[in-house]
Amino acid sequence: MQAKKNSHPGNVSPYHRAMAKAPVLTPRADDFPRWYQDLISKAELADNGPVRGTMVIRPYGYGLWERMQAEMDARIKETGTQNAYFPLLIPQSYFAREADHVEGFAPELAVVTHGGGKELEEPAVVRPTSEMIINDYFSKWVQSYRDLPLLINQWANVVRWELRPRLFLRTTEFLWQEGHTAHATYEEARDFAAHIQRHVYGDFLTSVLAMDFVSGRKTVKERFAGAVNTLTLESMMGDGKALQMVTSHELGQNFAKAFNTRYLSREGRQELVWQTSWGSTTRMIGALVMTHGDDNGLRVPPRLAQIQVVVLAIKGDEAVLAKVRELGDRLKAAGLRVHVDDRTDTPFGRRAVDWELKGVPVRIEVGPRDLENGTAMLARRIPGGKEPMPIDSLVRLLPAILDEDQALLLTQSRERRESRTSDVSTIGEAVEVARDGGWARIPWADLGEEGEAALAEHAVTVRCLVAADGSVPDADDAPGNVAVVARAY
Amino acid sequence: MQAKKNSHPGNVSPYHRAMAKAPVLTPRADDFPRWYQDLISKAELADNGPVRGTMVIRPYGYGLWERMQAEMDARIKETGTQNAYFPLLIPQSYFAREADHVEGFAPELAVVTHGGGKELEEPAVVRPTSEMIINDYFSKWVQSYRDLPLLINQWANVVRWELRPRLFLRTTEFLWQEGHTAHATYEEARDFAAHIQRHVYGDFLTSVLAMDFVSGRKTVKERFAGAVNTLTLESMMGDGKALQMVTSHELGQNFAKAFNTRYLSREGRQELVWQTSWGSTTRMIGALVMTHGDDNGLRVPPRLAQIQVVVLAIKGDEAVLAKVRELGDRLKAAGLRVHVDDRTDTPFGRRAVDWELKGVPVRIEVGPRDLENGTAMLARRIPGGKEPMPIDSLVRLLPAILDEDQALLLTQSRERRESRTSDVSTIGEAVEVARDGGWARIPWADLGEEGEAALAEHAVTVRCLVAADGSVPDADDAPGNVAVVARAY
Repeated sequence: MQAKKNSHPGNVSPYHRAMAKAPVLTPRADDFPRWYQDLISKAELADNGPVRGTMVIRPYGYGLWERMQAEMDARIKETGTQNAYFPLLIPQSYFAREADHVEGFAPELAVVTHGGGKELEEPAVVRPTSEMIINDYFSKWVQSYRDLPLLINQWANVVRWELRPRLFLRTTEFLWQEGHTAHATYEEARDFAAHIQRHVYGDFLTSVLAMDFVSGRKTVKERFAGAVNTLTLESMMGDGKALQMVTSHELGQNFAKAFNTRYLSREGRQELVWQTSWGSTTRMIGALVMTHGDDNGLRVPPRLAQIQVVVLAIKGDEAVLAKVRELGDRLKAAGLRVHVDDRTDTPFGRRAVDWELKGVPVRIEVGPRDLENGTAMLARRIPGGKEPMPIDSLVRLLPAILDEDQALLLTQSRERRESRTSDVSTIGEAVEVARDGGWARIPWADLGEEGEAALAEHAVTVRCLVAADGSVPDADDAPGNVAVVARAY
Repeated sequence: MQAKKNSHPGNVSPYHRAMAKAPVLTPRADDFPRWYQDLISKAELADNGPVRGTMVIRPYGYGLWERMQAEMDARIKETGTQNAYFPLLIPQSYFAREADHVEGFAPELAVVTHGGGKELEEPAVVRPTSEMIINDYFSKWVQSYRDLPLLINQWANVVRWELRPRLFLRTTEFLWQEGHTAHATYEEARDFAAHIQRHVYGDFLTSVLAMDFVSGRKTVKERFAGAVNTLTLESMMGDGKALQMVTSHELGQNFAKAFNTRYLSREGRQELVWQTSWGSTTRMIGALVMTHGDDNGLRVPPRLAQIQVVVLAIKGDEAVLAKVRELGDRLKAAGLRVHVDDRTDTPFGRRAVDWELKGVPVRIEVGPRDLENGTAMLARRIPGGKEPMPIDSLVRLLPAILDEDQALLLTQSRERRESRTSDVSTIGEAVEVARDGGWARIPWADLGEEGEAALAEHAVTVRCLVAADGSVPDADDAPGNVAVVARAY
């Protein structure tokens, strides 16, 4: 079964092709959105929830999120940020305090009007983000320069009513982390947002998710509601569209003014704080699928994978079962994340396809004949292919194999973006590139806000602005700025 | 300042006593509830939220929860249970499906009636617990005996409208884990609930929280809405009241019938599954405070503590700062969880009181004179007292000191319950014992449901039933059952 799936269709006679089973997933080239849905469902990542736009994250999908959380949380804590938890329910009146913020979020709010069997005196909003409630407490907690910087992160669920929901990418409820900080100076806040963008988010995407990205600043039109600057990391998905992975915002003093958050400086003056906020969400799971997935399913980067190696018993033979369990224990002892699949009451082929769908980087298959030969079949999900290996060499070889696979995914992701990005000089060309599933780079001086509006008519957006040297520009209109233009999720 | 706090009031003249600063907290003996509130606030564990009954869990309080999560999660995963995530919002109609369950929860529900600027066709309930939505998916996921047991856990927030809120103990929103499982047989479900109660919850309370408890079964009156049996662990707080720490429920086939959750057995028959659910919440933080707290603040068990050792620089002297940092690094390298307090722009006495309030097990104080002597002051929060120690001996001594402190807290907790528990034979005596801040044990045969109702008039409840030999009884009316009776939070 495995061999059939891997062989090139051109090698098979039309008769055999017709007889072969239908592909497990709709091929990406036929219908990318359908492929995505198929994969999410068949790899058991998530189901739709009963309230429109909500989702059930199934154990295998949630395992990806747990590993993302662990890797991100360690990086966030290294910046000196501490976790806390703020209420889900926010009085509706809070949303009137910051004008841009309320305008940005009003259409998406879910409102609780009844509690404990009675109509509430003031309705409560289910948080769409926590700037409002966190700033209320920041204004109480910050008194003196000694209280700064105040660096807080929260892991939580948020609700934004979603009209065109899509699992992981746009859901009415999603899980995320949201960082909120207050600083004594503009420079410190600006540098902190940039530090998060590079050393928390950028490093996580590169070294754990194995995802390439472009780092830039959002245009005024695309900025977070209430921010003075939004930094973004944008990645190219398998169909060439862009996806905003994470954002960090400089909030300036907008919220500090709205909540009157002041500190007594060393010089004895009352000063407004400077703030940042930054977030990343379960959308990253969708991005992972659309970046590394192929027509056989997901491919999980080894550093992220909750299961790096699955050891499969081909048959329920006592000797085979003993061998897979022993091998599983040895691989675990070597520090690998291992699952032993001994559910031999399910056909082997079905289990193999299942692990392939789920994208576990390495499968080790052990049957009665392997025991005789002292070998096991090593199947590599990321580059593809399988070959027999001496069973005793596996503990030694696997760490290097996993490192190689991790690096390969990042290279493939980078090469995709590079090969599909074109420099253009007109709006027409930019639209054409984006329509063909690529990214266009166009000087911001040639585009501007009018050009940005013109692109929008073709469902094409400016994903971010980058400086001529590829760095993040200090201002939208800095000379040499280039707009990265694409269709986006 | 430290010395003054620790010295016995009897050693101080009336004049000096009058001059001494007011105690940091209201003493427990004066007003236990006020002491609790003072401690939560001054140790910076939590604040009240703006929507009635909600709370903000501050970083130090959330750090306790993070450590609880880590320890519990590892134990939960060892049972083969996997984490997943189900939606916050549940269609209101779902709550009509299981009659007892809806009756139990209806008065506490928070209801979203508007989303995205429009009135919803069907209102959505903010989950008060997830039996309803999880069982909806279980009925889809369970097809065959191969899918069983299905063992799922969720870490999430839930909302139950609370009329008499109290931080951590009863809040409109709280954080928890809720386990939900489906099994092929009654025996397997029963044994799984008991296993969770003993090997996850019981072990966690004993070995991490250092909290004594009585393990028993709830009476019919106190059972979870929809369960056929509820197991509970009940602990005695510092004022002698009881607090229900965690519960595990046997759900029988009640939800399986409501959701028609059936599996194809090995014998080819369609059978209803047997289920359990079990939960533990941020209420455990309140229990921790009320169990181990004293008039100087919290005392955190070392195995739970996010900061086991704080190394304080008494003055901002270069040599002192270098020493505390070096010592901090050495202690961290030895595997301890260490915080270096070098905020010497805040007076030392205030910082020392602060760490005492927060209950960090060990403080190591280093000043210029200590450097000369090669010593540091070792202050132990749990037994109390401080003494100078050779600075180079600390890395060697601290692990044993922390183990000793962990054991001491458990012993104190057990001794409190044992010394305040009395065997009685009449309802009048039971009420008297409970009123005096103790627990009464009374044969269930002498109490019964009528006696239980009579106790309720005095705000006294049956916390649980235990068998004559102290084990958990198989039935409410098993011969020899003893009711443990107390006032409770």
